[in-house]
Amino acid sequence: MKKILYVPGVVVALSSLLAVNAFAQAKPDVLVKQRQAAMTLQGKYFGPLGGMAAGRVPFDAAVVSRNAGYLEVLAKMPWDGFDASTSGEKSNALPEVFSNTAKFKQAADHLQTEVGKLVTVSKGGNEADTKAAIGAVGKACGGCHEDFRVKQK
Amino acid sequence: MKKILYVPGVVVALSSLLAVNAFAQAKPDVLVKQRQAAMTLQGKYFGPLGGMAAGRVPFDAAVVSRNAGYLEVLAKMPWDGFDASTSGEKSNALPEVFSNTAKFKQAADHLQTEVGKLVTVSKGGNEADTKAAIGAVGKACGGCHEDFRVKQK
Repeated sequence: MKKILYVPGVVVALSSLLAVNAFAQAKPDVLVKQRQAAMTLQGKYFGPLGGMAAGRVPFDAAVVSRNAGYLEVLAKMPWDGFDASTSGEKSNALPEVFSNTAKFKQAADHLQTEVGKLVTVSKGGNEADTKAAIGAVGKACGGCHEDFRVKQK
Repeated sequence: MKKILYVPGVVVALSSLLAVNAFAQAKPDVLVKQRQAAMTLQGKYFGPLGGMAAGRVPFDAAVVSRNAGYLEVLAKMPWDGFDASTSGEKSNALPEVFSNTAKFKQAADHLQTEVGKLVTVSKGGNEADTKAAIGAVGKACGGCHEDFRVKQK
């Protein structure tokens, strides 16, 4: 049966599978810590933009563009941390994360789409358009938190 | 004295200053949480690469390239969290972080340089070169931890 390992395509597929497994083997508490870290950094880099959109912080196109680029990467990071193995871990994730995975994935994809738009718009330098795009990202964050996160006090 | 605010260049400079202050106003405990989050995610995305370089995980060029891109962004994120205001916070940062800021900055810059090299090399797809670049990133992590982080048990 070892013969199959000598078929190059299968070796590649097997390697990929093992590499993926190397991720999946992270313990549930580690996965929670990692996904929370991604959310923390999303907050770090979105916070000032939200402040700008709300007029609490002066608009700074360079900061928006830089942070939008960071957020584009960070917005990809939390989702594999919401593995089913973490459903029993202490966190702010509501059970709906694990019971309605299609809707949760849709919300995650929506955030990434809106962040992508912000990246594009922020490069144009138009303040009003950029603030509108920031608002849309904020709504994507808030919408997902509304459905899938324990209410914050 | 308000007149100065109507000079466009000054308005820009002032806006930038205020935007920077908006970051600096983060509380020390928040700064610590954010910098630890960046380190946690560096661990998430470097871990499998270290495993590949050590031969514990099958080499996967696509994963290396993707993670290297993530690490390039993540390697920029922790440093402003090591603000002097955080020196009294509970963390694994040794006092040297705050007493030898030049050496600390050098170590931080070194990591970013090595990650940049890994990004470039990983695009080339040469396994041996990529593994060597992974090793250099690992040394940059470890060197800084050696000097600036509480020894881990």
